[in-house]
Amino acid sequence: MPSISKRGENVPMSPFRKLIPFADKAKEAGKHVYHLNIGQPDIETPAYALQQVRATNMKVLEYSPAVGLASYRKKLTEYYRKFDIEVSAEEIIVTTGASEAIQFAFLACLDHQDEVIVPEPFYANYNGFAQIADVRIRPVTCHIEDGFTLPDTAAFERMVTTHTKGIFITNPNNPTGCFYSKESMEGLAELCRKYGLFLFVDEVYREFCYDGNSFFSALNLEGAEEHVIVLDSISKRYSACGARVGSLVTRNKAVLEAVTRYAKLRLSPPGLGQILAEATLEMEETYIDDVKAEYARRRDVVYNRLSRMAGVVSYRPGGAFYCFAKFPIDSAERFCRWMLEDFDLDGATVMLSPGEGFYATPGLGVDEVRIAYVLNEKALHAAMDCLQAGLRAYPGRLDNVERSTVKAGAR
Amino acid sequence: MPSISKRGENVPMSPFRKLIPFADKAKEAGKHVYHLNIGQPDIETPAYALQQVRATNMKVLEYSPAVGLASYRKKLTEYYRKFDIEVSAEEIIVTTGASEAIQFAFLACLDHQDEVIVPEPFYANYNGFAQIADVRIRPVTCHIEDGFTLPDTAAFERMVTTHTKGIFITNPNNPTGCFYSKESMEGLAELCRKYGLFLFVDEVYREFCYDGNSFFSALNLEGAEEHVIVLDSISKRYSACGARVGSLVTRNKAVLEAVTRYAKLRLSPPGLGQILAEATLEMEETYIDDVKAEYARRRDVVYNRLSRMAGVVSYRPGGAFYCFAKFPIDSAERFCRWMLEDFDLDGATVMLSPGEGFYATPGLGVDEVRIAYVLNEKALHAAMDCLQAGLRAYPGRLDNVERSTVKAGAR
Repeated sequence: MPSISKRGENVPMSPFRKLIPFADKAKEAGKHVYHLNIGQPDIETPAYALQQVRATNMKVLEYSPAVGLASYRKKLTEYYRKFDIEVSAEEIIVTTGASEAIQFAFLACLDHQDEVIVPEPFYANYNGFAQIADVRIRPVTCHIEDGFTLPDTAAFERMVTTHTKGIFITNPNNPTGCFYSKESMEGLAELCRKYGLFLFVDEVYREFCYDGNSFFSALNLEGAEEHVIVLDSISKRYSACGARVGSLVTRNKAVLEAVTRYAKLRLSPPGLGQILAEATLEMEETYIDDVKAEYARRRDVVYNRLSRMAGVVSYRPGGAFYCFAKFPIDSAERFCRWMLEDFDLDGATVMLSPGEGFYATPGLGVDEVRIAYVLNEKALHAAMDCLQAGLRAYPGRLDNVERSTVKAGAR
Repeated sequence: MPSISKRGENVPMSPFRKLIPFADKAKEAGKHVYHLNIGQPDIETPAYALQQVRATNMKVLEYSPAVGLASYRKKLTEYYRKFDIEVSAEEIIVTTGASEAIQFAFLACLDHQDEVIVPEPFYANYNGFAQIADVRIRPVTCHIEDGFTLPDTAAFERMVTTHTKGIFITNPNNPTGCFYSKESMEGLAELCRKYGLFLFVDEVYREFCYDGNSFFSALNLEGAEEHVIVLDSISKRYSACGARVGSLVTRNKAVLEAVTRYAKLRLSPPGLGQILAEATLEMEETYIDDVKAEYARRRDVVYNRLSRMAGVVSYRPGGAFYCFAKFPIDSAERFCRWMLEDFDLDGATVMLSPGEGFYATPGLGVDEVRIAYVLNEKALHAAMDCLQAGLRAYPGRLDNVERSTVKAGAR
């Protein structure tokens, strides 16, 4: 009997993967589980875009061009222009979600055992894409006490070795919700120029910047035109995760050529998803405005509730729809499991992502969690009620003083 | 300025890639080009399935489960049962086309520099998937004079090294159209048992077996349950190439687990495509019967026409919608280019795939082409007229005797 590959045995898994059986059991037992563990929004996909899919009159669902439908790529240039990004249709390659865009970027730019510097905590699936491409992630640690802002450029520079080929950031960030300013990115761009590195930037949450912050795309970093590769997706901005339509955008012609070759291998991105994606670019912008306002309200709910929980360290995330929080507990993994197995508040509980899986450095994030505010305000409040009560009752809570002095329901 | 990766520079390209600019120029100049170079059928996608996509009333286009929609996987068990394949829904993982299924299979089963034995000529994109997975393809040569039937098992056994982890076949075959019998596959299964190898079988053309041959799936090879991994897609059977929906089917639990992990990394296969795919399994079977009959007629057109062209070696392909042909010419690459640049018959010409790119062994296939019979009979006849006249007029024709003695239009 043949044995599977070593890499197949060691595919990095999502931080909440081990919790799924416990969530399933909780639901089987009749518990309601508020899922704040995954970035699947409850927001409706634009009705207009779904309607355009319904209105198709094609006879043959053919392969689209490997780099995407010409009409869609052209419309994407107008979309990017709204963010002051001037790119041509030829500089945009349509992909099967951002997941594929990341894989294409790694394959086109990095060789086996090349290194890429990534601020941690980071989106855990980058580990898997790095494994597939056989490249190494070198983490630069960010800290919850700083709201996970980027460390100064020197911290990145210290990680540069002869194998370093790129820096990878997510802006706004998943899992931290941190929003990176133009200034902090300029430092990275300078480093990339100095050492001849690629700057990979996952910008799938660019619509979701709060507090009046205006998004600055890495594609507008001056003098970094040959370095910057932006990974993108319609999944989050149009709540169309199932469409599987993303893009890779760069002005580096050699990268475009190599990515095009990889794109041709898998023939075509999804055809029906591209119809939906194209339709989203024909709509009025009120959809995005409304969604952004909704997420901002949710962000406030989560932030306000967390800030009133004793012993909890968090911050006001500036973008995306995630935040991290540090709990006064022995282990976030054990806590998250306990919440599913042993806790309920009026028949409900909450599922979170343990933080450890978002760090590459061993031992970090053990008392942290990621919270995805993908539910409506009412559900979020209910989930925060569960969290608050759970944190009080959890046997592995470390600051026993607080626990014994705060009366249940007193807050 | 950063340089792209070595692998990015060396992504294997499709055999007809270099011809595309010449085809584009020919079309710009007003020439009609019959495309027999690519497996994009002109057959209509089932109207019922497209209608079901139009009838969706979803509000949120969510991620589907990473392994595919439960309802679709269940229906697939019934689909496979029609070919006497008994598999459970858990043994089927829905993928983004067969392309992704192949990549998942390579990653899950093979480590870096492992080897997989593939009869040549083979579907050229396997080279690219092997490059991504960093595995090596070791070819076993099949011959046009034998209609590209599989060599005896000993030929495969001679290629086994300590690095060999699998055998990969395509049945019915792209690019040769060869149909492999149960008996020839049993020999391979025995070899796989003997050496502990995986048997990867791309069965995307299983519907298209002609001359009363009934398809035998590798999943029914006795005693090879742990070895066989079938790669599949709806692209060809339902002419739905743009749906990007395929599947990986195996009874090997460890492989299923590893593939599931890779599937989770990219979150979900396309949602809209899965709706279409599921709908194809609710239809009556007359669609497939009609399509198969249509391809059988086209096969006869191509075969009959080729067999009447002097100096051309071909055979009656038993399945899929491809055949290979050997021409009395100096170079298929030069001939195919010449057909686009310098030839026309009443304003039309034909584009074929040069054969060389389908072989891993250098020097093979230089005077061969792949013909995809993806056009209707009338168009095929017109394309064959072009080919016949082109072969006569081509300056690099080798058997000058024939060329000088046959009068144009005499056949």
